Amino acid sequence: MDITSQVNTAWMLTATVAVTLMLPGLALYYGGLSRTKNILNTMMIVFGGFAVTAVLWVLVGYGLTLGDSVGGAGLIGDPAGLLGIQSLLGAETPEGAVPAILIAVFQLIFAGLTVGIIGGAVEGRMKFSAWLVFSGLWALLVYFPVAHWVFAFDAADGSTQGGWIANGMHAIDFAGGTAVHMNAGVAALVLALFLGRRRGFPHVGRPGSLPIAIVGGGLLLVGWYGFNGGSSGGINDSAGVAVTNTLVAACAGLLGWLVVERIVRKAATSLGAVSGMLGGLVGITPAANSVSPMGALVIGALAGVVAFFALGLKERLGYDDALDAVAIHLLPGIFGTLAIGFLADPSSPAGARGILFGGSWGLLGTQFVATVSVFAYTFIVTALIAWLLKITMGLRVDDGTETAGLDTSLHAETAYHLDDVRS
Amino acid sequence: MDITSQVNTAWMLTATVAVTLMLPGLALYYGGLSRTKNILNTMMIVFGGFAVTAVLWVLVGYGLTLGDSVGGAGLIGDPAGLLGIQSLLGAETPEGAVPAILIAVFQLIFAGLTVGIIGGAVEGRMKFSAWLVFSGLWALLVYFPVAHWVFAFDAADGSTQGGWIANGMHAIDFAGGTAVHMNAGVAALVLALFLGRRRGFPHVGRPGSLPIAIVGGGLLLVGWYGFNGGSSGGINDSAGVAVTNTLVAACAGLLGWLVVERIVRKAATSLGAVSGMLGGLVGITPAANSVSPMGALVIGALAGVVAFFALGLKERLGYDDALDAVAIHLLPGIFGTLAIGFLADPSSPAGARGILFGGSWGLLGTQFVATVSVFAYTFIVTALIAWLLKITMGLRVDDGTETAGLDTSLHAETAYHLDDVRS
Amino acid sequence: MDITSQVNTAWMLTATVAVTLMLPGLALYYGGLSRTKNILNTMMIVFGGFAVTAVLWVLVGYGLTLGDSVGGAGLIGDPAGLLGIQSLLGAETPEGAVPAILIAVFQLIFAGLTVGIIGGAVEGRMKFSAWLVFSGLWALLVYFPVAHWVFAFDAADGSTQGGWIANGMHAIDFAGGTAVHMNAGVAALVLALFLGRRRGFPHVGRPGSLPIAIVGGGLLLVGWYGFNGGSSGGINDSAGVAVTNTLVAACAGLLGWLVVERIVRKAATSLGAVSGMLGGLVGITPAANSVSPMGALVIGALAGVVAFFALGLKERLGYDDALDAVAIHLLPGIFGTLAIGFLADPSSPAGARGILFGGSWGLLGTQFVATVSVFAYTFIVTALIAWLLKITMGLRVDDGTETAGLDTSLHAETAYHLDDVRS
Repeated sequence: MDITSQVNTAWMLTATVAVTLMLPGLALYYGGLSRTKNILNTMMIVFGGFAVTAVLWVLVGYGLTLGDSVGGAGLIGDPAGLLGIQSLLGAETPEGAVPAILIAVFQLIFAGLTVGIIGGAVEGRMKFSAWLVFSGLWALLVYFPVAHWVFAFDAADGSTQGGWIANGMHAIDFAGGTAVHMNAGVAALVLALFLGRRRGFPHVGRPGSLPIAIVGGGLLLVGWYGFNGGSSGGINDSAGVAVTNTLVAACAGLLGWLVVERIVRKAATSLGAVSGMLGGLVGITPAANSVSPMGALVIGALAGVVAFFALGLKERLGYDDALDAVAIHLLPGIFGTLAIGFLADPSSPAGARGILFGGSWGLLGTQFVATVSVFAYTFIVTALIAWLLKITMGLRVDDGTETAGLDTSLHAETAYHLDDVRS
Repeated sequence: MDITSQVNTAWMLTATVAVTLMLPGLALYYGGLSRTKNILNTMMIVFGGFAVTAVLWVLVGYGLTLGDSVGGAGLIGDPAGLLGIQSLLGAETPEGAVPAILIAVFQLIFAGLTVGIIGGAVEGRMKFSAWLVFSGLWALLVYFPVAHWVFAFDAADGSTQGGWIANGMHAIDFAGGTAVHMNAGVAALVLALFLGRRRGFPHVGRPGSLPIAIVGGGLLLVGWYGFNGGSSGGINDSAGVAVTNTLVAACAGLLGWLVVERIVRKAATSLGAVSGMLGGLVGITPAANSVSPMGALVIGALAGVVAFFALGLKERLGYDDALDAVAIHLLPGIFGTLAIGFLADPSSPAGARGILFGGSWGLLGTQFVATVSVFAYTFIVTALIAWLLKITMGLRVDDGTETAGLDTSLHAETAYHLDDVRS
Repeated sequence: MDITSQVNTAWMLTATVAVTLMLPGLALYYGGLSRTKNILNTMMIVFGGFAVTAVLWVLVGYGLTLGDSVGGAGLIGDPAGLLGIQSLLGAETPEGAVPAILIAVFQLIFAGLTVGIIGGAVEGRMKFSAWLVFSGLWALLVYFPVAHWVFAFDAADGSTQGGWIANGMHAIDFAGGTAVHMNAGVAALVLALFLGRRRGFPHVGRPGSLPIAIVGGGLLLVGWYGFNGGSSGGINDSAGVAVTNTLVAACAGLLGWLVVERIVRKAATSLGAVSGMLGGLVGITPAANSVSPMGALVIGALAGVVAFFALGLKERLGYDDALDAVAIHLLPGIFGTLAIGFLADPSSPAGARGILFGGSWGLLGTQFVATVSVFAYTFIVTALIAWLLKITMGLRVDDGTETAGLDTSLHAETAYHLDDVRS
């Protein structure tokens, strides 16, 4: 490796370390929000879905996502020659580039986390075996293709072709507003619909441990630096700007939610603080290198507000998205993707010009088409997978299992044994 | 960016990631020490104070802190031209330097954490709205000026001037013994005095969850590498030495406290282990690049002992610094700042010579003046802010709210719902 | 420092930050698995053992481990000139190298964590004072020598000589399959034997808080990137491959354990998921730069299975390794070390050729001799230390202390005070 490769590699290694914090972060966030009788099941859903996706990624997913586009159509990568990512092992690293195997592991984590986010919808009622099978099928049929569309760029030397959204439409999705957050959010919505509501919905009990959810939120924040900052691909102007915008949007989202919650519901909650922070983080994800810090303040604050109002949808529309993947990931993800059309600042690293900076409406149109495309594809294919599993192995546990809690019933464990203090 | 800039940026990005771990770390540490009925309120105090400070930093704080000193007086930076940190976006990065926007976000985190530390004093009795307003005023009137004094260095080319403590006095405060820990500790003392004691003090109940406090302490330790190591500003001899001294002082502080606690109180406690570790970390903060690892051992161990004895002050003097910001941050911060006068090792990166290495008493005098100056300014201005809030919006919740706990009363939440396991 | 040194330093600083996450990670993992009445004691065992080791490392351990081999025999380093690691402070950094002080602190963390791992064996019945003394003696008499054998390489210019396993035998132990995991696992076994079983074994109660154990597992995973990735010593092909293999093996270990557990015990548990993940991580530790990602999949999955079956040994053989350091560290550590003999892939950075890739049986023989040597030395010397402490200060608390729990009895604390919510 030449020295420029090395310095870019140093940052991508760091980003890989950081982004992995999102795995325990997500498990804790969702786990803390679960009812205590399901906390271990929820944590296993996050870890288990991640692990299944990781194994598939090594076997075929890297090729399907980042391989040369089959027929140049931009729809799916060609895994031939990339199976087991074996060929990346001794591969020459081009001048200034990062070793392909490091890109592979960084993107693996994106895939695994996206699957994990979906798990927020299924709390307390999904068969663990069905979840693992769903994870694998969804990774293969939804994530790998959509990530190819959005994250696979044409090689500069023309040797490989990438996905249609990244290269044909030139939509801006820096770190995964569409491919990660919207994608997972749509799948969560579909799975919630196929699973049905928890018994007693909407009176289903309260989060088992808010402090654990807050720990999770904190680790997610730190991990997000790797997620967004690492999407720069190396040490360049995008990295510092993305990290800055990420933190600024998180803080603005936290405050945005709290202010609205205080006005509307008369009490600012800790769950609201974390939810608003995550909403802000989701909102800035596609836009982290295309807006200024002031733009990040605006996107973060509004994404927090969007998440707040989105939370009420599930009771009004009747789908039981238990831990709010739709409110936190789907709607702020859409919001952030579209907001680029207005707020893209030409002095930011991406260099695009939004409507508020005198740009045309064309960018907003592009962002809109990308959003609708991912929404439609993911909705349809996820529904097919869910339907298939429902009629074959079944998605849902029986009523006794649900009432007793999945930890005891499925995993033969309970989360806490606190009372031996007195024994 | 040239390659030297890039490599320095790689480390400052890492340090930014690491130091952000201190946000959840501090929330967990304070949250675990709170009584269970206030744990969520305490966590929101840390996150909320950080978020308010972050927004102000982007708007005006960066300029007030790191802008060109108004009139060259070294008292406050000039925010003109730096509002919204917009001008940093496309700024040219000088040869070998780190992009200004990355310095901005790194220093933002220092500001937000310093405000968060103060929150240790107010457990269980401060209005959340008053806390948020206090956070903003204190950041504007105390932190930004004091950080300007200590952290704003004159530009090498003379283009901008920095603060009087850094440049006029040449006091050594590597990562914030005065500007961060003493500063926050003094403010905590003042706020405890204005708030008054919790009902029943000193018999107020015990920490709700020591394991959560210990998680927090662990994350603070890791984050401190970013705090101290990142204060090197790049990859140079200071970075490695600061990281080494940080860990060594933490371990020595832990052991120092435990030994004294075992002798004086007959039992070495886990809370003592964490407190001693944090005392050691605070003590080494100003000195991380000016002493040897043996010096760090000594500073860490003694800072742990200082923190131990400082803990008894609040009962003796009657101020209710609930979670011990004074004992952990104020006194070890002063100790570490002054200890440099004795232990500064000329073979360390800072190159200063302490009294024990044959240096003059001048360095100790300089450190003393810096300490007294920050103490006096912060004490007076914090008292004015607290007094102003007390006579306007009021600082303290009513008795019923305090007895019921702030989580239920202010935030309409309770931390745990553990009993559904049996439902 | 030249620019190549700087870029290598950037990564080693990051790896140092990451690996330190394993300290709170291990404390939480073991703490969560402890019975609630001992959780604080267990966390203090990890932190306390680490701190004692750290202080000894600075004083003499660095020299004993990484100093020039006494008499060139490869048995122990010479600490003369390295006491207090003072001489590393202003040392010239050779071209392309990492500052010696940074290597010193990185390796300090390995030493401290290895001691911490042993703590898994002693839950609920060891005197805290005896543990601290044991930690110090074991670091001096076992860890420092064994780490010298395995981790001290001859200087390229012949100026210093290293350990016999690294340089004489050329065994492959990238990040400590023998020196760390096997080493700690053997010591845990010996200590469990000398301590005797907990009262009522094997009916001793259940883990106090599985969610806390899972947080710990997650932090260990992230820290392991630093552990294995940092063992590359800089930015080179090994770093990216090691990080990739680490994550892949962790995921495979998780799934490997769950599949076998589901078949054998009819329920896949969250504790199993974490245990399998850690088993996979231990297994890949020696092999992280000598196998392909497909090899990491195989090692990880099988190491998870090894750990699962190893768990049953303690009841069958009657030693009370309370938190399973033997099952998670000793046996997967041996497995991974020997698996290199079969799975070493010549296209990986280490370039060795295992039997399945057409290599000779010689490599396996070398790995076997290294394994047996460390096992025998550690077993014997640890037994001597444990025996010495048993007949002098005593290892075990009295029955009343054990029954009441060590938190209350030894540390005058209880972990949780959750009931003030109603007060």
